[in-house]
Amino acid sequence: MALDFPEDVALVEMLPRDGFQRLDEFVPTDEKVEMIDRLSSTGVDEIEFTSFTHPKAVPTLRDADEVAARIDRNPDVSYRALVPNAVGMERALDVDVDKVNALVTVSESYSRKNQNMTVEEILDEVRTIVDLADGTDVAVEAGVGTSFYCPYEGRIAPEATLEVVEAAVEAGVDEVTLATTMGLADPRQVTDLFTTAMERWPDMEYGLHLHNTNGMSLANTLAAMLVGVDRFDSSVCGLGGGVVLPEGMTGVGNTPTEDLVRMLAAMGVETNADPDRVEAVARHVSEALGLGATSHVLMGGTVDRVLETVEEANN
Amino acid sequence: MALDFPEDVALVEMLPRDGFQRLDEFVPTDEKVEMIDRLSSTGVDEIEFTSFTHPKAVPTLRDADEVAARIDRNPDVSYRALVPNAVGMERALDVDVDKVNALVTVSESYSRKNQNMTVEEILDEVRTIVDLADGTDVAVEAGVGTSFYCPYEGRIAPEATLEVVEAAVEAGVDEVTLATTMGLADPRQVTDLFTTAMERWPDMEYGLHLHNTNGMSLANTLAAMLVGVDRFDSSVCGLGGGVVLPEGMTGVGNTPTEDLVRMLAAMGVETNADPDRVEAVARHVSEALGLGATSHVLMGGTVDRVLETVEEANN
Repeated sequence: MALDFPEDVALVEMLPRDGFQRLDEFVPTDEKVEMIDRLSSTGVDEIEFTSFTHPKAVPTLRDADEVAARIDRNPDVSYRALVPNAVGMERALDVDVDKVNALVTVSESYSRKNQNMTVEEILDEVRTIVDLADGTDVAVEAGVGTSFYCPYEGRIAPEATLEVVEAAVEAGVDEVTLATTMGLADPRQVTDLFTTAMERWPDMEYGLHLHNTNGMSLANTLAAMLVGVDRFDSSVCGLGGGVVLPEGMTGVGNTPTEDLVRMLAAMGVETNADPDRVEAVARHVSEALGLGATSHVLMGGTVDRVLETVEEANN
Repeated sequence: MALDFPEDVALVEMLPRDGFQRLDEFVPTDEKVEMIDRLSSTGVDEIEFTSFTHPKAVPTLRDADEVAARIDRNPDVSYRALVPNAVGMERALDVDVDKVNALVTVSESYSRKNQNMTVEEILDEVRTIVDLADGTDVAVEAGVGTSFYCPYEGRIAPEATLEVVEAAVEAGVDEVTLATTMGLADPRQVTDLFTTAMERWPDMEYGLHLHNTNGMSLANTLAAMLVGVDRFDSSVCGLGGGVVLPEGMTGVGNTPTEDLVRMLAAMGVETNADPDRVEAVARHVSEALGLGATSHVLMGGTVDRVLETVEEANN
């Protein structure tokens, strides 16, 4: 039995939003711009480069407008920004964005605590965001947070997630991304949820945003590919991830882009990204932010590096 | 499309052999016996509890006979020992073992350097081992090292691995385990190789021994399950792995049993192992050997621990 992997997949780099957002310290705008420009040269298809959130809610991304103005645009890259509400969407439309990630959440507790809105109020914002995008060339993706687990409610019922997906589809979004948020989803949950969503809304474009709290993110990627998902969010150095994590888990929050790209390249699943260039940016980011070796690639777990090490040890 | 996972899989715990073998220091026999006894109570189906290798070749396992004599046998557990040659098999038959892992390698360079024999000479030893097992109740498994990559030769041609599998099958072994050795295999290589082997020798029992140098071991497990593999080697704390690894990779060598068991349990793939008991042993081993948090479970990346952490943070 041969497994049916997609021929190619699209990669979305999350470091500048999901990664920088989780850091305690503000990364200076100059550094952010430089890292985003480096990421633009790796071949990733899309970069979530900032979030148009209230500066008091996410102070580490308070320079969103300046970042948008200063980055070098690579015409082959889609520049996406997170917008948590219509106000954020208006700010995003004032700068040059190709796509917005309209954040919705399934969990009522999470929505109230994190966005001070009910799920229905957030969905109203999404409807307004789609209306605002209408007539522009800005695409709207719904990023469905707490699709599997919520930090306050625990396991989320699949039907609850599917109801939110349905509302997003009816609102007219161009893409739906299921997000693990807590990084606790397993391959069966991932394939079951996507399979049902794809059966109900077969014309929608789907993506997966994977946090890696349980270490299953590459297995989840594999599982998702086998049911037809072909767009994945990840972050160099694995920076990003859940809002609250046990001590010692900072830096293992997201799927490391450098590990993901190596797996896809080894498997012959095509991406536009160059594994060596992604690795070089990961090394730069790790050093600049003092992250250490937070991925297998950064630890040296690649074919070339291992064979080099063996050769050195034998000379 | 629903993915076809096996209903249940068997787990083989490698800590006492693959793990202890890689440590620079000798784990005192008392400690080894205690850890093996703890592992015997986790529900894993099989434990590779030592290696009957020449004491000078692997001094950290020089107490193999004493370990065999002193461990408490759980009747539900199969106690397996590695035997690199017929001399080792004779020692294994003198003590109480349920199964032996007759080590073979595909790479000629690796065989000569690590075992000072050619591949053909090793296969001759396997034939003798099978003869020695004949008429006893000891099962023989062929552990096929360097099935995918060799530290000296790089990528191993699949046909070379299949030739060694064929020789093992013809020798009359009861099981064949493909071993990544370098921990560099990817899901496509794993599924392709198993698929071909299973087509050629459909009556053989297959297992997978996964090192985790590239971080793909859970993805590889998933892929292997989808083509019908239902026996997996792993090691608590991920201890073990490749013979030579880049600096900083000690402790990420093997698939951590505690992570693997959590994934299988979450997916509803049955094992006899209890995730909480496996985790407790992993915590004990990590502390006793000073390993730190070398798995996602040890870092706290489980549903229960994450939700506890969130609750504590909110109180």
